[in-house]
Amino acid sequence: MSNSFGELFRITSFGESHGRCVGVVIDGCPAGLILTEEDIQKELDRRKPEPGAGQTSRAEEDRVEILSGVFQGHTTGAPICLLVWNKDTDQHYYEQIKLQPRPGHADYTAFIKYGGFNDYRGGGRFSGRITAGMVMAGAVAKKLLSLVNIEILACTVQIGSIKASPVEVEEIRKNVYQNPFRLADIGIIPDIADLIKKARREGDSLGGIIEILALNVPAGLGEPIFDGLEGQIARALLAIPAVKGVEFGSGFSAALKRGSENNDQFLIQDGIIKTRTNNAGGILGGISNGMPLVIRIAVKPTPSISLKQQTVDLSSGRNVEINIMGRHDICIVPRAVVVAESMVAVVLCDFALRSGILPGVIK
Amino acid sequence: MSNSFGELFRITSFGESHGRCVGVVIDGCPAGLILTEEDIQKELDRRKPEPGAGQTSRAEEDRVEILSGVFQGHTTGAPICLLVWNKDTDQHYYEQIKLQPRPGHADYTAFIKYGGFNDYRGGGRFSGRITAGMVMAGAVAKKLLSLVNIEILACTVQIGSIKASPVEVEEIRKNVYQNPFRLADIGIIPDIADLIKKARREGDSLGGIIEILALNVPAGLGEPIFDGLEGQIARALLAIPAVKGVEFGSGFSAALKRGSENNDQFLIQDGIIKTRTNNAGGILGGISNGMPLVIRIAVKPTPSISLKQQTVDLSSGRNVEINIMGRHDICIVPRAVVVAESMVAVVLCDFALRSGILPGVIK
Amino acid sequence: MSNSFGELFRITSFGESHGRCVGVVIDGCPAGLILTEEDIQKELDRRKPEPGAGQTSRAEEDRVEILSGVFQGHTTGAPICLLVWNKDTDQHYYEQIKLQPRPGHADYTAFIKYGGFNDYRGGGRFSGRITAGMVMAGAVAKKLLSLVNIEILACTVQIGSIKASPVEVEEIRKNVYQNPFRLADIGIIPDIADLIKKARREGDSLGGIIEILALNVPAGLGEPIFDGLEGQIARALLAIPAVKGVEFGSGFSAALKRGSENNDQFLIQDGIIKTRTNNAGGILGGISNGMPLVIRIAVKPTPSISLKQQTVDLSSGRNVEINIMGRHDICIVPRAVVVAESMVAVVLCDFALRSGILPGVIK
Amino acid sequence: MSNSFGELFRITSFGESHGRCVGVVIDGCPAGLILTEEDIQKELDRRKPEPGAGQTSRAEEDRVEILSGVFQGHTTGAPICLLVWNKDTDQHYYEQIKLQPRPGHADYTAFIKYGGFNDYRGGGRFSGRITAGMVMAGAVAKKLLSLVNIEILACTVQIGSIKASPVEVEEIRKNVYQNPFRLADIGIIPDIADLIKKARREGDSLGGIIEILALNVPAGLGEPIFDGLEGQIARALLAIPAVKGVEFGSGFSAALKRGSENNDQFLIQDGIIKTRTNNAGGILGGISNGMPLVIRIAVKPTPSISLKQQTVDLSSGRNVEINIMGRHDICIVPRAVVVAESMVAVVLCDFALRSGILPGVIK
Repeated sequence: MSNSFGELFRITSFGESHGRCVGVVIDGCPAGLILTEEDIQKELDRRKPEPGAGQTSRAEEDRVEILSGVFQGHTTGAPICLLVWNKDTDQHYYEQIKLQPRPGHADYTAFIKYGGFNDYRGGGRFSGRITAGMVMAGAVAKKLLSLVNIEILACTVQIGSIKASPVEVEEIRKNVYQNPFRLADIGIIPDIADLIKKARREGDSLGGIIEILALNVPAGLGEPIFDGLEGQIARALLAIPAVKGVEFGSGFSAALKRGSENNDQFLIQDGIIKTRTNNAGGILGGISNGMPLVIRIAVKPTPSISLKQQTVDLSSGRNVEINIMGRHDICIVPRAVVVAESMVAVVLCDFALRSGILPGVIK
Repeated sequence: MSNSFGELFRITSFGESHGRCVGVVIDGCPAGLILTEEDIQKELDRRKPEPGAGQTSRAEEDRVEILSGVFQGHTTGAPICLLVWNKDTDQHYYEQIKLQPRPGHADYTAFIKYGGFNDYRGGGRFSGRITAGMVMAGAVAKKLLSLVNIEILACTVQIGSIKASPVEVEEIRKNVYQNPFRLADIGIIPDIADLIKKARREGDSLGGIIEILALNVPAGLGEPIFDGLEGQIARALLAIPAVKGVEFGSGFSAALKRGSENNDQFLIQDGIIKTRTNNAGGILGGISNGMPLVIRIAVKPTPSISLKQQTVDLSSGRNVEINIMGRHDICIVPRAVVVAESMVAVVLCDFALRSGILPGVIK
Repeated sequence: MSNSFGELFRITSFGESHGRCVGVVIDGCPAGLILTEEDIQKELDRRKPEPGAGQTSRAEEDRVEILSGVFQGHTTGAPICLLVWNKDTDQHYYEQIKLQPRPGHADYTAFIKYGGFNDYRGGGRFSGRITAGMVMAGAVAKKLLSLVNIEILACTVQIGSIKASPVEVEEIRKNVYQNPFRLADIGIIPDIADLIKKARREGDSLGGIIEILALNVPAGLGEPIFDGLEGQIARALLAIPAVKGVEFGSGFSAALKRGSENNDQFLIQDGIIKTRTNNAGGILGGISNGMPLVIRIAVKPTPSISLKQQTVDLSSGRNVEINIMGRHDICIVPRAVVVAESMVAVVLCDFALRSGILPGVIK
Repeated sequence: MSNSFGELFRITSFGESHGRCVGVVIDGCPAGLILTEEDIQKELDRRKPEPGAGQTSRAEEDRVEILSGVFQGHTTGAPICLLVWNKDTDQHYYEQIKLQPRPGHADYTAFIKYGGFNDYRGGGRFSGRITAGMVMAGAVAKKLLSLVNIEILACTVQIGSIKASPVEVEEIRKNVYQNPFRLADIGIIPDIADLIKKARREGDSLGGIIEILALNVPAGLGEPIFDGLEGQIARALLAIPAVKGVEFGSGFSAALKRGSENNDQFLIQDGIIKTRTNNAGGILGGISNGMPLVIRIAVKPTPSISLKQQTVDLSSGRNVEINIMGRHDICIVPRAVVVAESMVAVVLCDFALRSGILPGVIK
């Protein structure tokens, strides 16, 4: 396993869905940052299941604890260990999946890779629950980035076939955490709500697309060719369970464009160099160009569904039919919004330290 | 800059478009592999511009030289330095771009990041030419993977709005390097040829999509959560200039699917566990599941176009109009096919070593 | 800070002397290892201060807790978080040292590096207490190595000017943890005890030398040139507070030898290739040669002494005299023995995984 | 193999003794550094064998070539590939050693690790010749460090039993490269010369000790706990063939000292905080304290000697006697002086970039 990410701002994730805790160690956080448990709790609360959004009823009352690296209200430069204890870990439903892997989950691949020793309860290490660690790390990263005015925003832009319309940045800031679907385009809330209700009724699940913006990223971040912004952001986002695609700027739709349309022509305005369009999503040659970063990720429909599915019993080697019990999110997309923000923040923090935009000590 | 990739099979890239050479050092290649310059040359030739495919007329007669790491026809376990000398580096056109960055290229971001010291000739370090290093490394990786029966295939599946139809694997093997467009679906060759001719006439360029398959990848490769297969493959592919999106299996179209459609149900057939569909693209939880890996990348239209474009003069701070001279590819997609194969091979080689599927010494 | 060590068996350390806890995350431990808290506690107990050995009276009743990565008695392949809670953290004495750095400690350098935000209580992150994390990680590493018959032994070979005589390996196994000085040569126990008593009476402290052996290391471990065995072992051991030198085999005394004396001539005995002498300490070219690894480290005298010392007040910028209060070890050497063993075990475990001697899953 | 070193200033070494070349790729060098081949050649010349110093008569007229990363006389931020072509590679003597490993060399361990595929000619990858790559990288590192006034000095302080007396820093600067023994204490030149002549006559070889100083290192460099200055410097120096021990400040002699002697008491002088003594060798807790770094390495006697030695024939499995032919250094110590300087420079450059003392672009 490889549970660390980052060079100068390095996070190391640990914990399982139904083990004792989920945690993260942040190594390389500058000293002198004012940091409280509330700073982190605030972000963690944004990951909570929301009533009405078709999400799991597991009462995840995650309370973060800072175990190290903070002294007298400031970070010390030492590694910061953040942890939430697992409670309400319903263990009844999970014996079956040890040997009858759920389609779309990592049960089978974990079984093979770890020789059957993997903690299979609730997906164990592969559960969406581990994203709590990502969010805790992201909370610190966001706070650091805010010192240099970098802001990360994200929202749901598609669930099933329903797509959001583009909105102003101000709408994103205002709306996303005011509705359970993490929509900035609040006009489609009723349609999305209906879609999710319908899927629930049918015992099925839904996927979608999340868009992430990073504002005020100065030109010059990124370490090509193998640590370009796109590469490391993609790697970070694809670590989120259920993400199956990443694109930047015009992304896959660039295939349809002519160079004359897709190229972002430069102009100078009030002494600042900008581009007229932003098909590059703020990144050229793996390096930020001063325009907003624009990133989209594809989130597959939650693999846990109530409908019967075919699988293989690993002990008997026979084809069997399974019925997944337990609590599941009908659509994981809204809960992944804050996670996606967090991982982008972690990447940018690392690059900001590498380029010297963030100092080693906050004064 | 960060020009190394991989943990146990680590490549380090160097060289520029109009410098003395382009090269790569491979560290961690097992000893005992039979390796000749021809093995590498064969792959390098697949990257050559093809007459009729709308590609640059720069006479890139790249001849690989093995500078280290091979002795008596076998790899020794020592780092392998592979190099092609640059010839025919037409230098006339490039003085202008130092201070008048071309839209869609990394001229501007490189200027900012490296304080104007970047080698701007032909894009310098950001040129597509550096992919020669990727292909040389990929040649070694492919040869290693072939020892454990893993095969990487890729083809153009879309240029502009013209999409290829799905074909059998055998068609990919047979057709791709027999046509300048790297199509497996040869029925659309005439349409693609016309499309490219038209774009050339209009001084414009085209983007497209490449699909990469990895066959016979055993279940169990990948090191989640941060070195999952998807994350590292995405990072590797996004290091290729012009790639702006990556997806796995059903990818972005998963957003439109229900869980019941997108989940790949398991079945056992002749004692082998498979899935009925392959929407996961062979990867669950960042780990291979034994099905073919299916990856698609979006390639943006070549930013070099003959049409006039707006940019900013960095010395005067004025908006100016430029006309890019020199030789360019109308559509870089076909030449990126072998590069994409190469980078996927490099990633899989690293994971194969990490999991012990490839040994430290080839006997 | 850089609190991770290792490539495939990677440990990440966190915690401070007077914070909430000291812990370590182990990433890359093979799945299937039987692991209990007792396995780790046993090693941790060897780090406890011993009555009569001139060691701190802080009642460190460290009880390890396994927070993740173990399920049903076996490691799962997921990161293992191990933790001891800090108790009995006597906080009275430490306000002074924030601004009046103790000679020989890291108080001053930490103050400079972290801008005064470092946790200075008891040395904070730079305290010997963080070696509890090393010992916990080492306990897992030793258990893994024992599966391939590799054994790590260490003992005190010098305190002050009193040197131990060479003994048989069996004496090391039998004696070291039966006396508070971690001596294998038990004949010098009375002299050492007297020496320590005298130093205590005088308010002073003592240094020494530890020798570490690794037995049954197969030929072929080590990844030259920059990850040779010597380099990574030295790096690991120099992370232990107070260690100021490392040597292998004949080490510094090699300077005095002729090549004809220092070269270890090969011979074959019962089909096994050995060397007649072991001046190389089992390592040639950074790679193990099948002979026992022989490593020695220099441990400086504990910097905390009762005698008055000169230092600088960082707020007033004046020279001042200080008197260090609190409990200190007169001689840290004996307590560092198990820590040194642990760090060597961690390095060898990493290399054993890299070379495939240890598998990814223990069956 | 692991042929890269460093995080932000990362060198990747390649080449063999009797292959085509020896080279190094430097990744992460700031853009804007004025760099010519002469800058590097000057350092490389210091590694040349010196007549009268008992060194190999191989006519190593190494001429460096800059293959990438420099444009218009400045570094560009792109990876810098530096290379010397091998000439005068006398191949006659080496067939024997493939199967009859020379005592004290890596022939045997390389054979085992690489399954007999290692390039055995002249030690191949394990030859002292690869230190040419270290020196080339060091030349760039030294030039960068000189911009922030950091200076690295080194000299031979012991050969066999003859020890140099301490001298002023000015003597080191003035003398070292004016005598073939790299002595700063020139009073012992005649004795050393005699000692070497005697050893040569007897077909034997000599070891010694090198001391390295780093001056003007600001307080605050180093990334504890695992990337402390001592750990990374030791790792870097132990990558030099024949180095078997490393110590800092009082090093192994600290074992003999009381805390009251070994502690460096602080004082303020002209507003600058210093220590009265420098037993810490300028490093506390892995972090520089503003005093000169003082490092010593033990260099074993050259394993190549003319005297007959016992070894094992790997094909027949029989004990045999060998006579090593070819040209060898009687004492490698003097030639290792510039190499040791270089590796310390590489480490400090990396830390200077990590701490922001060196910028990403030199203006």
